[in-house]
Amino acid sequence: MTRLRVGILGATGTVGQRFIALLADHPQFVVTAVAASDRSQGKPYGEACAWRLAGDLPAEIRALVVQAPEPPLDCDLVFSSLPADVAGEAETAFARAGYPVVSNSSSHRMDDAVPLLIPEVNPDHLAVLDACRDARKESARGRGRGFIVTNPNCSTVVIALALAPLAARFGVEAVVVTTLQAISGAGYPGVASLDITDNVVPFIANEEEKIERETRKILGRLNGSNVEPAPFPISAQCHRVNVVDGHMAAVRVKLGRRAESAELREAFASFSAAPQHLRLHTAPARPIVVRDEPDRPQPRLDRDAGGGMSVTVGRITSDSVLGHRFVVLGHNTIRGAAGAAILNAELLMAQGYL
Amino acid sequence: MTRLRVGILGATGTVGQRFIALLADHPQFVVTAVAASDRSQGKPYGEACAWRLAGDLPAEIRALVVQAPEPPLDCDLVFSSLPADVAGEAETAFARAGYPVVSNSSSHRMDDAVPLLIPEVNPDHLAVLDACRDARKESARGRGRGFIVTNPNCSTVVIALALAPLAARFGVEAVVVTTLQAISGAGYPGVASLDITDNVVPFIANEEEKIERETRKILGRLNGSNVEPAPFPISAQCHRVNVVDGHMAAVRVKLGRRAESAELREAFASFSAAPQHLRLHTAPARPIVVRDEPDRPQPRLDRDAGGGMSVTVGRITSDSVLGHRFVVLGHNTIRGAAGAAILNAELLMAQGYL
Amino acid sequence: MTRLRVGILGATGTVGQRFIALLADHPQFVVTAVAASDRSQGKPYGEACAWRLAGDLPAEIRALVVQAPEPPLDCDLVFSSLPADVAGEAETAFARAGYPVVSNSSSHRMDDAVPLLIPEVNPDHLAVLDACRDARKESARGRGRGFIVTNPNCSTVVIALALAPLAARFGVEAVVVTTLQAISGAGYPGVASLDITDNVVPFIANEEEKIERETRKILGRLNGSNVEPAPFPISAQCHRVNVVDGHMAAVRVKLGRRAESAELREAFASFSAAPQHLRLHTAPARPIVVRDEPDRPQPRLDRDAGGGMSVTVGRITSDSVLGHRFVVLGHNTIRGAAGAAILNAELLMAQGYL
Amino acid sequence: MTRLRVGILGATGTVGQRFIALLADHPQFVVTAVAASDRSQGKPYGEACAWRLAGDLPAEIRALVVQAPEPPLDCDLVFSSLPADVAGEAETAFARAGYPVVSNSSSHRMDDAVPLLIPEVNPDHLAVLDACRDARKESARGRGRGFIVTNPNCSTVVIALALAPLAARFGVEAVVVTTLQAISGAGYPGVASLDITDNVVPFIANEEEKIERETRKILGRLNGSNVEPAPFPISAQCHRVNVVDGHMAAVRVKLGRRAESAELREAFASFSAAPQHLRLHTAPARPIVVRDEPDRPQPRLDRDAGGGMSVTVGRITSDSVLGHRFVVLGHNTIRGAAGAAILNAELLMAQGYL
Repeated sequence: MTRLRVGILGATGTVGQRFIALLADHPQFVVTAVAASDRSQGKPYGEACAWRLAGDLPAEIRALVVQAPEPPLDCDLVFSSLPADVAGEAETAFARAGYPVVSNSSSHRMDDAVPLLIPEVNPDHLAVLDACRDARKESARGRGRGFIVTNPNCSTVVIALALAPLAARFGVEAVVVTTLQAISGAGYPGVASLDITDNVVPFIANEEEKIERETRKILGRLNGSNVEPAPFPISAQCHRVNVVDGHMAAVRVKLGRRAESAELREAFASFSAAPQHLRLHTAPARPIVVRDEPDRPQPRLDRDAGGGMSVTVGRITSDSVLGHRFVVLGHNTIRGAAGAAILNAELLMAQGYL
Repeated sequence: MTRLRVGILGATGTVGQRFIALLADHPQFVVTAVAASDRSQGKPYGEACAWRLAGDLPAEIRALVVQAPEPPLDCDLVFSSLPADVAGEAETAFARAGYPVVSNSSSHRMDDAVPLLIPEVNPDHLAVLDACRDARKESARGRGRGFIVTNPNCSTVVIALALAPLAARFGVEAVVVTTLQAISGAGYPGVASLDITDNVVPFIANEEEKIERETRKILGRLNGSNVEPAPFPISAQCHRVNVVDGHMAAVRVKLGRRAESAELREAFASFSAAPQHLRLHTAPARPIVVRDEPDRPQPRLDRDAGGGMSVTVGRITSDSVLGHRFVVLGHNTIRGAAGAAILNAELLMAQGYL
Repeated sequence: MTRLRVGILGATGTVGQRFIALLADHPQFVVTAVAASDRSQGKPYGEACAWRLAGDLPAEIRALVVQAPEPPLDCDLVFSSLPADVAGEAETAFARAGYPVVSNSSSHRMDDAVPLLIPEVNPDHLAVLDACRDARKESARGRGRGFIVTNPNCSTVVIALALAPLAARFGVEAVVVTTLQAISGAGYPGVASLDITDNVVPFIANEEEKIERETRKILGRLNGSNVEPAPFPISAQCHRVNVVDGHMAAVRVKLGRRAESAELREAFASFSAAPQHLRLHTAPARPIVVRDEPDRPQPRLDRDAGGGMSVTVGRITSDSVLGHRFVVLGHNTIRGAAGAAILNAELLMAQGYL
Repeated sequence: MTRLRVGILGATGTVGQRFIALLADHPQFVVTAVAASDRSQGKPYGEACAWRLAGDLPAEIRALVVQAPEPPLDCDLVFSSLPADVAGEAETAFARAGYPVVSNSSSHRMDDAVPLLIPEVNPDHLAVLDACRDARKESARGRGRGFIVTNPNCSTVVIALALAPLAARFGVEAVVVTTLQAISGAGYPGVASLDITDNVVPFIANEEEKIERETRKILGRLNGSNVEPAPFPISAQCHRVNVVDGHMAAVRVKLGRRAESAELREAFASFSAAPQHLRLHTAPARPIVVRDEPDRPQPRLDRDAGGGMSVTVGRITSDSVLGHRFVVLGHNTIRGAAGAAILNAELLMAQGYL
């Protein structure tokens, strides 16, 4: 089987490195181009990149020369983890040039014509692209029309995944979420050690707005080819804590009907959706793992569940103000970033968009 | 002026050490006895105690022999930070033997006849002791009748202090609080390093219940010599984070009337109460410090505000679910434990109970 | 192929858990018995053990009932990670009862009749057991005579592995080593978080003595069936640092002859020994990985090299006092403990001792 | 008494902030000018500086406008903590313009005409400036001739202070030092949290060379107005560890004559020098505090000894390779930087150079 050739925009950053690590040995994709917006252009990736993941940089990537993040690139689609200030224009340019763009950047997430996708939650939102798909089919996978598909912000993925089965089964009327987020979420060099050692920072720029806005789009209803945001209010307070990987969220939720904690537990534990049914390569067996120990989930013990693609829910109980509460944790650079985009691409492929 | 002679129960523990550090050079109290429930009895304190605070153990304490936590002790009042499993009986025994007991332990906090006191918040709750006071006055500070006064759990102090001016000015109808608590709150050895390095633990035994229960008692209304708990619901989710000292709480609050964020800010910043008016030795000039920077409060930068006796509030803004939100931080072993008890004792003295 | 049935003594501890994780799916061993010295006896392992490794406890171990660490146990050999205070007698009892004992405990390491083994370094020291082997062969793997084989202390393995190729090629005349050791080396609960957060502790009980003593035995010369300790002096200063896994050692070494840094680099990088030649299951392809970046090795990036069984050497340069220096890092609970013992057992099997 | 008016070059950085904090309420100096090499020029200091120390920025500094680090500045002397790439020229310019320059920067430390000063160790090295002093005296503290005085690199101060009494009493023949250094030593933002959380970095740029070079100059012998570096070799290996403040050094030392550990202890504990005899304001009562507990010094418990100006020595014992060893710890931004420079200025004042 021929693998699609993939370009990575923002390849030298934290998420770019995760893309490369997760795509090593991928059955459907092979990295053939790397691009970055910084001074590393023109150097071999092995020199340009200060590889910060455990283990070695895959050998076949080492010699790829870092290019500017502009079309054309020698690939069939691009993954993008460009910084927000350059992602908007660059991704638009690639889409116009006919490339499918699978982006982790925030620039286009709220665009009407761009799906904000979690394959387990809102695969139907791909309908936004249907005109695209039809055109591409006609052109026999030629450079017909490009498009952009985005995944949510790293903490939003985790929260929306946990809310999805509750919204489907009970309805959601209000959400209050408080996050404890890992330092890798800020990239590299990112958070200064003097800011986070023996400390907590109760602020992450734009994060609270992103959670409130993106969650409603993801859980919104498709109306024709438009997505109507979910109508319930969400309140988010975000904190950076001294954890390497793994975003935690303490969630209270007001449901649309009475429910026992055991029913919520069952809704989480039995959750399974399109990526599981389609057996997508990166899909975890269980999108939501439920732990019953009183002190779980914990970042260091649970972030790698399902290869970093499962979120883990615990501490499910009743709440005197909102009705229900629980804690959810997910790996922010896998399920919350590179892994999310790759799963999006796998769904696009399974559905005929690639 | 003669200083009251003080005994410390639980003197070798984390809070006991803070008592000793904070009482060095205190104008009204002098430590004359130390007691502990463990194997250290019979040894000089300098040997019995593994001193874990920065700086040296005060020289005058070094030679005091650790005694059993039973009356009689050579002192006029006792501060108690005994573990919960022994505090109940021991404190009752001291009170029956005529000692005023100023306790940081949880055993008697919810007793009807015991004030749960924050001097800035509910000094009127001392009325519960009025029969005591009258009796003691008659007996000319003799061993008339003892009594017990408690301070709240370490995170509750911080939360209740922040809620107090809001309750007074706007009324409070519901509170949702999510805590990020320091490791020193668990005592020594307390939290294992393997549990908290590169990690968060979303569980602190009994903490959520304590916050929900104690806050309502503190903000309750005095009816004769009874305290009726405040009627609003409180939801607490508690997390241990990798911070040495300083408990942080992310708070949403539903108020009894419409208010702008600026009004909440003003209510916090202008808050001043009995300890400030009485110029109590340990009282901070401002019980609540407001910081307007977007990324404050932070434990390492703000925990020592007001000598560790001020709490710091920041990030005051509107909230789409509850109406208002903010973040508050306080030093858990000073304002949240030893300093709280000492301030209680200073108020008792100023009000004639000692 | 039939797998040998293995019992684990000290199965509920930190190293015991590593044994279980590393033996899952092992081609030669299968865990059939678990024992512990604590209150967990009589409970199923799944209940008795607070599993602290990432990922789930292997399902097939969950139901094994924890037994007392006394013979008989239903197994062909035992791995031991008992605490030092009980290991001595228990291991002797198992050996007397005819079990091969492969121990990570310190009790018997310095016994004359017990090899202190690193398969890459001193496989010839197994000659100490030769009488054993012959007897066992005769009895057709029956319960002939048991024996004890030990692996070194967790930091000693790392240091001795790095010294081995230098000793072989250049001779070693003096070693000065300063360690920075991970918290997992102290077991669980082990190091209190209040002792190590924002801190270093320049003391690990008995560690400096163990390094100085054990390294000389490992690098000692076999004389008949006796091991004569290497004659060079070793100086060790040991520190606990705030790292989860991975012991680092800064090493200066005085060699027996002049050598360039490049020669040391080559001696490290080309090092290969019995476990590699025998293709033992747990043996890493390269026992010593050399990194040339100026800031490596680092615990978080390099501890998992070779599945945790390689040590990583960097910063090789000349030294104005001792002649040469470098930094070496290894995974303390894998290469430094459970993995070391398993590799020992694999060598014993390959050499006919099992 | 009139206070000398002080300008601070590099005022917005980590060490610059320490200068401001330590000079608040200083009896001899008052800050009248602040300068920085960055984009903050022209703004009030309160706006230009992201104050990162606990507590508030002193109010009287808030309104000072940040200037370029070029003469003239409205002050009698300047403290400099400029980055190395601009310090060289800027400090020379100030000295030429007649200002005494008391610098923490590395640019001029090894210049022949510049003392590299620790007031307790080599106050006699000020003789290098004697021509200066005489000229200044004549000009009645006018703008006669400026000069530059430097303090050592942050880890070198700590090491040299500990070696000083040994060199004086026993002679020193070789030193092997391994450091564990705090993140604040790298300034702000400095060390990325992703590089140091759950990690150690065995590399600090130029640090090993600085320790080896500067220590020999400090402990060198004055020959006329020249300093001859001490002749013994020093080997340094440097590591960054996850500690906020406090540099630790594990030291082995070969002495010039036989000595017992108890004699070293006594040499450390009784050490006292010019700053103590002159009762300089910033001088600690004891430059070296000796701790006899087996697990001290520790950064969090000992870095603030003597207001951050004492170093703490522990673990003094014999060493099988070099003869003796111990561990020493000091506060890197107080004794190792801003406090060092201020003590230098106090000595200059006491000796008539200011």
